[in-house]
Amino acid sequence: MTYTVAVAGCTGYAGGELLRLLLQHPQVQIGALTGNSSVGDRLGDHQPHLHPLANRTVEATTADVLSGHDVVFLALPHGASAAIAAQLDDEVLVVDAGADFRLRDAEEWEKFYGSPHAGTWPYGLPELPGAREALGTARRIAVPGCYPTAATLALLPAVAGDLVDATQIVIVAASGTSGAGKSLKPHLLGAESMGNMSPYGVGGVHRHTPEIVQNLASVTDQSVRVSFTPLLAPMPRGILATCSAPIRDGVDAAAARAAYVEFYEGEPFVDVLREGVWPQTAAVVGSNRVAVQVTVDAAAGRLIAIAAEDNLTKGTAGGAIQSMNLALGLSETLGLSTVGVAP
Amino acid sequence: MTYTVAVAGCTGYAGGELLRLLLQHPQVQIGALTGNSSVGDRLGDHQPHLHPLANRTVEATTADVLSGHDVVFLALPHGASAAIAAQLDDEVLVVDAGADFRLRDAEEWEKFYGSPHAGTWPYGLPELPGAREALGTARRIAVPGCYPTAATLALLPAVAGDLVDATQIVIVAASGTSGAGKSLKPHLLGAESMGNMSPYGVGGVHRHTPEIVQNLASVTDQSVRVSFTPLLAPMPRGILATCSAPIRDGVDAAAARAAYVEFYEGEPFVDVLREGVWPQTAAVVGSNRVAVQVTVDAAAGRLIAIAAEDNLTKGTAGGAIQSMNLALGLSETLGLSTVGVAP
Amino acid sequence: MTYTVAVAGCTGYAGGELLRLLLQHPQVQIGALTGNSSVGDRLGDHQPHLHPLANRTVEATTADVLSGHDVVFLALPHGASAAIAAQLDDEVLVVDAGADFRLRDAEEWEKFYGSPHAGTWPYGLPELPGAREALGTARRIAVPGCYPTAATLALLPAVAGDLVDATQIVIVAASGTSGAGKSLKPHLLGAESMGNMSPYGVGGVHRHTPEIVQNLASVTDQSVRVSFTPLLAPMPRGILATCSAPIRDGVDAAAARAAYVEFYEGEPFVDVLREGVWPQTAAVVGSNRVAVQVTVDAAAGRLIAIAAEDNLTKGTAGGAIQSMNLALGLSETLGLSTVGVAP
Amino acid sequence: MTYTVAVAGCTGYAGGELLRLLLQHPQVQIGALTGNSSVGDRLGDHQPHLHPLANRTVEATTADVLSGHDVVFLALPHGASAAIAAQLDDEVLVVDAGADFRLRDAEEWEKFYGSPHAGTWPYGLPELPGAREALGTARRIAVPGCYPTAATLALLPAVAGDLVDATQIVIVAASGTSGAGKSLKPHLLGAESMGNMSPYGVGGVHRHTPEIVQNLASVTDQSVRVSFTPLLAPMPRGILATCSAPIRDGVDAAAARAAYVEFYEGEPFVDVLREGVWPQTAAVVGSNRVAVQVTVDAAAGRLIAIAAEDNLTKGTAGGAIQSMNLALGLSETLGLSTVGVAP
Repeated sequence: MTYTVAVAGCTGYAGGELLRLLLQHPQVQIGALTGNSSVGDRLGDHQPHLHPLANRTVEATTADVLSGHDVVFLALPHGASAAIAAQLDDEVLVVDAGADFRLRDAEEWEKFYGSPHAGTWPYGLPELPGAREALGTARRIAVPGCYPTAATLALLPAVAGDLVDATQIVIVAASGTSGAGKSLKPHLLGAESMGNMSPYGVGGVHRHTPEIVQNLASVTDQSVRVSFTPLLAPMPRGILATCSAPIRDGVDAAAARAAYVEFYEGEPFVDVLREGVWPQTAAVVGSNRVAVQVTVDAAAGRLIAIAAEDNLTKGTAGGAIQSMNLALGLSETLGLSTVGVAP
Repeated sequence: MTYTVAVAGCTGYAGGELLRLLLQHPQVQIGALTGNSSVGDRLGDHQPHLHPLANRTVEATTADVLSGHDVVFLALPHGASAAIAAQLDDEVLVVDAGADFRLRDAEEWEKFYGSPHAGTWPYGLPELPGAREALGTARRIAVPGCYPTAATLALLPAVAGDLVDATQIVIVAASGTSGAGKSLKPHLLGAESMGNMSPYGVGGVHRHTPEIVQNLASVTDQSVRVSFTPLLAPMPRGILATCSAPIRDGVDAAAARAAYVEFYEGEPFVDVLREGVWPQTAAVVGSNRVAVQVTVDAAAGRLIAIAAEDNLTKGTAGGAIQSMNLALGLSETLGLSTVGVAP
Repeated sequence: MTYTVAVAGCTGYAGGELLRLLLQHPQVQIGALTGNSSVGDRLGDHQPHLHPLANRTVEATTADVLSGHDVVFLALPHGASAAIAAQLDDEVLVVDAGADFRLRDAEEWEKFYGSPHAGTWPYGLPELPGAREALGTARRIAVPGCYPTAATLALLPAVAGDLVDATQIVIVAASGTSGAGKSLKPHLLGAESMGNMSPYGVGGVHRHTPEIVQNLASVTDQSVRVSFTPLLAPMPRGILATCSAPIRDGVDAAAARAAYVEFYEGEPFVDVLREGVWPQTAAVVGSNRVAVQVTVDAAAGRLIAIAAEDNLTKGTAGGAIQSMNLALGLSETLGLSTVGVAP
Repeated sequence: MTYTVAVAGCTGYAGGELLRLLLQHPQVQIGALTGNSSVGDRLGDHQPHLHPLANRTVEATTADVLSGHDVVFLALPHGASAAIAAQLDDEVLVVDAGADFRLRDAEEWEKFYGSPHAGTWPYGLPELPGAREALGTARRIAVPGCYPTAATLALLPAVAGDLVDATQIVIVAASGTSGAGKSLKPHLLGAESMGNMSPYGVGGVHRHTPEIVQNLASVTDQSVRVSFTPLLAPMPRGILATCSAPIRDGVDAAAARAAYVEFYEGEPFVDVLREGVWPQTAAVVGSNRVAVQVTVDAAAGRLIAIAAEDNLTKGTAGGAIQSMNLALGLSETLGLSTVGVAP
C-alpha cells in the first residue's frame, strides 16, 4: 500500500530533510508541499538538492491544501501547528516536527515558550519505554527536539537503571548550524559561524531543557535536574551531546557499558559502540543512527555518556518517519538507513 | 633593551605562533630557530605566513645552538625539555611550552604521562594568585596547557570564592584541531575533521586533567574533583570551555557575576563580558584575550562559567610571552594584543 | 538476479563511497573487502559511517580473495591494478577506479605518470558519445578521474557542437580534500586545509590533463588544448569546474544553452539547470547528479560552462556503479540517486 | 604626529578590519565611528574582536560627525559616498572603500552599476605604475575592489611586459564569504556556505570586471578583454585568483618568473614566491602581503599566474591604509604587517 504524504514547511531544513527521506521511502507518495513566503515558487529554488521534486510548486499552508493526504508532516514555526491540525480529519496522521505538543506540563510550556499550552501528543521517541506502543495507534505525533533526542538516548539507560544520581546531570551539546533553521540572523552567517564555537541559551533557559527532563523523569522515580548548555559548532549538521552525572557507588565502566548494551539491544537506530570507540558526528551524517558510548570516570565520580546524531535525520525528519512507520503499522525502519555519508 | 630569543621546535604550531607574536614584540630579537626532521630547511617552507623569517634556516635542537640567547622557548614533544634545559646556563630564561614541568605531584605525572617526573617549574599562569610574584624572578617557566588555561580562568573565581562545590566540577571543552599539533594522524585530516565534532580522552584520562585540578586546588581548601571531556571541533583555532559546578546556597547569577568581575579586575587579558553576552572563539582568534562569562542555573542548582581563548595564543604562545615579560621585568602586556582577527 | 561484488581498497575514500552506494543497490551482494596495511581490521574502524558492514574483516588484496565474485571494484594506488586484473577470470567484471587504464596514448601516460603504460580499457563515462555501447559489453572498465568527469561534462556539448575554439580551453576546478585520499600529508591536515584555498599541479602537469583532452578530442576534429588548474578547497567533498573557451562567431547565450539542453536530453545524471541558476557543490553531495550551466560572455568573447559534482559519487564511485549497471545489463540508474544531502 | 581618523560604516566587515589595523597603527588616533541602523549601539556588540573599542558608541553617519578628523574612511554601500564626501573639507583625506569613484569610464559605470557616475578619484593601488605619485598628493582616494587587487597584481607584469595576448585573459577567483559583507542573504548562511563552492556573477557581469580591465589597460596598448568568474568559497577570508592568458611566442616559465621578480622588486607587499611554491590563502590571513606565482603551460600555450590575498586586508582595509600612509607622507608600510595568522 502507498500512503500519500503532505509536507507543510517544505522550504526549511526540516522540510527538506523530510522530503529527502520520503523520496527514498518505498511506501509513500509525496503530495502537497506547502510554504509561507515562498508560495508559488518552484521547490528547486529552495531545495536544489531535491532534484526529483525541483519542478514542484510550493502551495499555501492551509487545511484545504493539506487535507486529503494519509499523512501530514508539519515543519512550522512554534505556535502554528495547533490551528492547522485542528482542521485536519482525525483519521489523518499528523506528525508535528515543531515543539507545540511535546510537553505534558502546561506550566513548564508557558515558562519556556511564553504562550498558552496547545496540548500534548504522543511523543515520537520510540526508544522511550512504552512509546512504541503509544505510537502504534497514534494519529497525532509530536516529534522530539533534536537535542532531547541525543541527550535522552545518551542518558536513558543510566537513569532508568539507577546508575546515576539524576539530580546532578550535566549536558553540553554541540550542534551544526542547520539546527537554527534558515533564519536570517547575523550570527548564522557563514563568515560568523565558520571557525567559531559559541554557546547560547546558557543557564537553563533553552527550550529543550524541560523536554529532556520530561523524558528522563519518565523512567525513574528520582527527581531529575539537568544543566543543559547548547553550543553552536562550525558545521552544517550533527549533534554531539556530552552528558554526565554522579555515578552510584559500585558502578564501574564495565557495568555501565553492559547496562547500555542490554538496554538498547534490538534497537535498530541506537548503536552502542564497541568499547573504547567514541561517537563522532561525521559518521552519522544523513543516517538515522545514533552512536552512543559510556564510561565511568572514577576519580571524578561521574558516568560520562556521549551520543552523536544527525540533528536533521534522527534528530528531526528521520525520527518523524520512524514514528510514522509505527503509526502506519509499517516496519519501523522502512525507508531509513543506518548508513552515513562520509567524509 | 633588546633580548635575544631562540625558539626550539620552530616548525610546529606552537613554535609558529611564538614567532608570530615575537615578530610584533618591541624588545626581542629573534635568534636561533631549531627543529628536528626539518633541519636545513627554510622556515618559509614550514611557516609560510611568517614572511619576514621565510629565509631563515632551521638549525638542530642542541644546547650549542640554543645557548647564548637571553631567552629560549621550548616547543618540543613531551620528555625532550629536561635534557636541553639542563645544558643551558642558569641565567638563561627557559620557557617550556611542553608539559614536562607543569605538575607538582610526581605520582600524578607518572600516572598520566607514564614516564619519570622531570621536576616542577614556576607555572606560567599569572592570573593564578601568587603566580605573578613567582614568575617575576623565575628563570625556568612551565607554560600551562591550552585546556587548563581556559578551564582554570573560567572556574577560578568560583572556586576561590567558595561559590561552588568543587567536588562535582564538570568541564566540556571544544578545541580547534591545531591543538593536536601537526602530527600526521588520519583523524586530523581535513576530510575527517571538517564537519565533525568528536570527543577524545574521555573518562578522566586526558593529561590536562590533573593540571586543572592542581590549579583549582591551589585556591581552595576543598577537595577538587573534575570531570573533563575534550572535544575536537571543526576549526583550526580556539577553545571554548563550558564549565559547571553545584552552586552554594544563596549564590545567584548577580552575585556570581559580581565575584567574577571583582576577581579579574585589572587583569589585562581576562575579560568578564557584559551581562548576557557569552564568549565565542571567533572573537579571540589571534588575541591574548580570554573572554569569560558566568551565570547560575537555579533549577539545575549549578553555576555555569564559559571561557573562550585562542589555544595557540593565550593558550600557548601568548601565555608564554606574557610570562616572559614578567620574568624579564617588562610590562606584562608588551607585544601582546587583545584585538582578534575576525571574521 | 543478485551479483556478488568485491571491493579492493575498502578503507579509502573511493572504497568507502563504493560501499555506501553498493549498500543501497538492490541487485548486489557485498562480498570480499580487501585492503593493504589494514588487513585483519574491522571495517568499522576505518569506515564508521558504514554501519551494516562494521563487523566485516578486511582481507588481503589478492587474486585468490577477489576471485569468485561477479564484479570486482579496484580502488588501489596507481600501478597496482594491472597485476591483480590479469589474475582475474575474463568473465569477471573488473571496474578500476584508478588511473591505470584510462589513457589510450602510451606516450602521454608515460609522460604524466612516469611508468610503463598498462593498457586501455573501455572508459566509464556513459555520457561520452559511443561509450554506452562499449560499456554494455565490457568486462574491464576504467572509471574516469574526478576532475575529467566534471570538466568533460561541462564542455562536451560546446566542443562537440563546435561552439568554441577548442585550442584555448581554460579549466579551473576546485575540489574538496577527499579528492586527495586519506594520505597523511601535512597540507591535508584539517588545521592546514580549513579556511584555505590553494592550487596544486599548476602549469599543465596534473595527471588528469591528458584525460580531459582525450575526452574532448573524441568529439571534435579540432585540435584540443586545455589549460587545467586544480584547486584544493576547504570542504570534504565536491568539485566545481569553471570552464571557458573562445566562442564561435554568432553563438550567443541562448544558442549555447539550447545546445546543452539538447545534448543532454534524456541523460539521467546530467542536469542542465534552468537559465540563470548556477551549479553549487552543496546541492550534489552524495548524489550522482552533475549540475551544469552555460552562458556566453560577449565582451570577453568566451563561452563559460560550469559543472558541479560530488567527486566521490559521480566523480568516482557513482560513475563506477553507473558503468557496472550498463555492463551487467541492468538499468543504468539502478541504486543511484539524484538526491543530495543538504545542507 | 598623530592623525585623527573617523570610520563611517564601522559595524561591517570592511569597517571592522579598518579598525583592527588602525588600532595597530602608531600614528593614528581613532575618532568617530559611525553606522546606520546601529546608531547608539556599543561597538562591542557588533565587533566583539575589537576589545579596546568595545565601549565606543556608534554615531550617525553625517558630515557633522565625520568632520574635524584628518582622515575619514568610508565603508558604505554603493552610492552613499559622494554625498558625504562633498560635505567634507577639501583638506580632509577621504578614503572610500566603496566602488563609487573607482572607474574612469562613466559609461562602464552606468552599465555595471545602473546609476549615474559620481566621478573618479585617485586609485589606491600603489603597485600600479604611476599610482604612488598620484596618491602622494591625493585628498580623495578610491580603494580598489578586493578581486581587482588580487587579479591585477597577478597579471600586471605579464600585461605590462607584453608576455601575453591580453585579449584572452581568463580569471577565476575564489573568495571567502566575508567578501559579501554582513548582508542577511540565505546563501550566505553558514549551513549553506560551509562545504559549498558556488559561482556567482558569471558571464562578465560582476562589477569588478571593468575595474580589472581598467587596471590592466593602463599598462598596455593592447586591447584588454577579461573573462572573470568569481566563486564563493567555504571560508571566512581570503581570495585566490587563478589567472591565465595566451603566452607570447618564446616566453617560457623562467622568463615569466624573471619578469615578475623584476617587476615587483622592492614592492613591500607583493611577494613573488620562490620557484615551485604556489600561493595559498591561509598564509596571508590578516596580512597585507599578496603572494604571487607564475608559470607557463607550454602545451596549452598559456601563462598561468596566481595570487592569494586577504580580501579584507590588502583587498580592502590594508590597501586603504597603505594609500593613506602615502597620502599623509608616512612610510607606506606603517602599521601594516606581512605576517599572517595561521593556522
